[in-house]
Amino acid sequence: MKTLFKNCYVLCGHEIKFTSLLVEDEYIRYIGDEPQEYDYLRDMKGALLMPGLVNAHAHGPMTLLRGVGGGLALQDWLNNAIFPREAKMKPDDIRIGENWAIIEMLTAGITCTAEMYDFPWELGESLVKSGMKGNICRVGLSFSDQEEIPPNRFNECVEMVEKFNDPTGKVVADFCLHSEYLSTDSIVEKIAEANKKYKRLVHVHVAETKAETDECKLRHNGLTPIQYFNKMGILDQKVYAAHCVWVNDDDLAIMKEKDVSIVHNPTSNMKLGSGFAPIRKAMANGVNVCLGTDGVASNNSLNIFKEMHLASIIHNGHRLDPLSIKPPQVIDMATINGAKALGRYDTGILEVGKKADIIAVSLDKPHMYPVIDVLSLLCYSVQSSDVVMTMVDGKILYDHGDYTTMDFEKAKFELAQSLKSIL
Amino acid sequence: MKTLFKNCYVLCGHEIKFTSLLVEDEYIRYIGDEPQEYDYLRDMKGALLMPGLVNAHAHGPMTLLRGVGGGLALQDWLNNAIFPREAKMKPDDIRIGENWAIIEMLTAGITCTAEMYDFPWELGESLVKSGMKGNICRVGLSFSDQEEIPPNRFNECVEMVEKFNDPTGKVVADFCLHSEYLSTDSIVEKIAEANKKYKRLVHVHVAETKAETDECKLRHNGLTPIQYFNKMGILDQKVYAAHCVWVNDDDLAIMKEKDVSIVHNPTSNMKLGSGFAPIRKAMANGVNVCLGTDGVASNNSLNIFKEMHLASIIHNGHRLDPLSIKPPQVIDMATINGAKALGRYDTGILEVGKKADIIAVSLDKPHMYPVIDVLSLLCYSVQSSDVVMTMVDGKILYDHGDYTTMDFEKAKFELAQSLKSIL
Repeated sequence: MKTLFKNCYVLCGHEIKFTSLLVEDEYIRYIGDEPQEYDYLRDMKGALLMPGLVNAHAHGPMTLLRGVGGGLALQDWLNNAIFPREAKMKPDDIRIGENWAIIEMLTAGITCTAEMYDFPWELGESLVKSGMKGNICRVGLSFSDQEEIPPNRFNECVEMVEKFNDPTGKVVADFCLHSEYLSTDSIVEKIAEANKKYKRLVHVHVAETKAETDECKLRHNGLTPIQYFNKMGILDQKVYAAHCVWVNDDDLAIMKEKDVSIVHNPTSNMKLGSGFAPIRKAMANGVNVCLGTDGVASNNSLNIFKEMHLASIIHNGHRLDPLSIKPPQVIDMATINGAKALGRYDTGILEVGKKADIIAVSLDKPHMYPVIDVLSLLCYSVQSSDVVMTMVDGKILYDHGDYTTMDFEKAKFELAQSLKSIL
Repeated sequence: MKTLFKNCYVLCGHEIKFTSLLVEDEYIRYIGDEPQEYDYLRDMKGALLMPGLVNAHAHGPMTLLRGVGGGLALQDWLNNAIFPREAKMKPDDIRIGENWAIIEMLTAGITCTAEMYDFPWELGESLVKSGMKGNICRVGLSFSDQEEIPPNRFNECVEMVEKFNDPTGKVVADFCLHSEYLSTDSIVEKIAEANKKYKRLVHVHVAETKAETDECKLRHNGLTPIQYFNKMGILDQKVYAAHCVWVNDDDLAIMKEKDVSIVHNPTSNMKLGSGFAPIRKAMANGVNVCLGTDGVASNNSLNIFKEMHLASIIHNGHRLDPLSIKPPQVIDMATINGAKALGRYDTGILEVGKKADIIAVSLDKPHMYPVIDVLSLLCYSVQSSDVVMTMVDGKILYDHGDYTTMDFEKAKFELAQSLKSIL
């Protein structure tokens, strides 16, 4: 099947061309002005084609908790609003919450997500059915070295990477450690040892708050979370580390050397009062930086365009320097850097031979005109509602309000039903 | 003419009711569940009615420059990208740029704007034709005490407040001083003196950057911009002061005493690297805080919902405290506080007897569901594209993509023509 997109702007790297783009099966086969054979023609009427957005840190099923516990202090919010509700969630609630997250993300032009949440098999099932790409994981954590608590967690982590298999390769299973503060030496060692064999990516929270980082140093002879994970061998495989707000210069040097990606979650970091991740310095040091939404409960959206906007401006404010972060860097964070962080080297950019993970952004709304500088529009002006089409591996999953794999009304009905038991 | 809105959530202060609301002519006449007579019924299908948003600091015609000079340092951007283009703008360009700004703002649920730009008569004409509310002004500034430069600027300021007259009262003329750094003592004194007679509001930029504030102290024996304007008598009438990033505790005490409103422009302050205005402290001290977009060139949108999102979260990040700013405060900033700042005491809240400045926000999109906490949705999740209707003084100006007073296609065509001469 060949689909030819015509009359479109195409974001090629950081360059904009007004041209056409041919998708054949899962791949981008041609970008240019020469006539092409096609089965299906789409006149894009001046919309912009760009790479699908990558959400490299999410807890999708928390869509169920959007707005729960607003106005509470962090520990109060976690202990009295979030944890009791999460404890009530059954596998079916997870599937339902993830379905809603997928609908929200496809609508917002996200083609690939990295999900860290309980019931990963249900997450995987929802993602595979949706046609979206995803990195999933069993959350590795333990509270006791004597006896693994929760029991068998390590075995479940291994089982996930060993047995989860999406034949299309769109959904993959990674290893995961929740964080230094929810891990004992024992589970960290065991995961590092197991990963010598499996060589999977590792998804982890790192240095989100100052307190967490200070306490890690007390627990581990002055080692920061990154230094601790490095010592334990976790960084010997490729890691994507969410937050990294409080990483220091030594940490950044280790991350560069070990190819650890930072997943920057600016909305969550602002809303929860965590602070400003040193992403400018990280990028200057050659560390790969990408973007994540975190869970809806601490955001409250799954909207990478919002993360791009915040990443574009808050560091200028924090550093009192309007040139801290520039649009091309932010475009990369949201696309190719995210793809790299998730071990996906065949996507994240519109190039011949790459997978056709493509979104169309309308330039028709008042806030997107005049079209003088498209990169600026994408970083400062766009809204996720400007996304009019989302394609993954050559298959259109969202098209002007319609979904081709998700049942919107059913998903909404099921979400309402789930909420009755959770709230 | 009586219009009854049914099946809607209604934001009454900080409370949400699911009820109906009756508008008669320009006024809200009834909110409740009793049957009402009407000429026209609107089934809102579960949308939310809330007060129209107030943009209390804008430079509307800069829509013409959206994205111009991206990636340049501040002075370079002003001197080489913005000022040369502004110098080319003729009155007709101003009208065209303001028309586009009005279209963008009505689409985004803004019912009232405070505009500071050259050619205020053209601004006023555009606003009056549109049916939107606005505070306009001739920008007071002078570079020499010997000879007013630009010449006759003071007279033009007075002429504006004396002669501009919108019979509907929706558009009003204020006094304006650009800022301490673009004012001589002479023009400041003359405006303060004249305003003893006219008793108008004064629109002014205050303490946007640290450098500006430091230099003010050097020029004026240690006085900050607020202290300087106070000494010169400007604060004897009601002032709305844009930015106030670098105001100190003494300034806040003066602002409270003199009823000076802070117009917080978080996007602009972040993008331009100006810093974090102390709005939490200001509010704790009883200073009225509202929101503005600043010009598109330093934003790059006219979207008060984006300002609400930033105001809701960036101060948490800056203060490392997730409870710095709460949704009810932010809702007030965007509505009733903005109305108060602009001297409008008959609007900014949905109450019987107030003017019907009302917007409808759809709760139907994936990012707005579930509806557990509407105030949270409005501060953290909403996009301006969720606005489906904008009503000013009982007249619908925007309705599901259509405009009742603005010609969208003509405005877009004219903008493209203007750009040819400016760029």
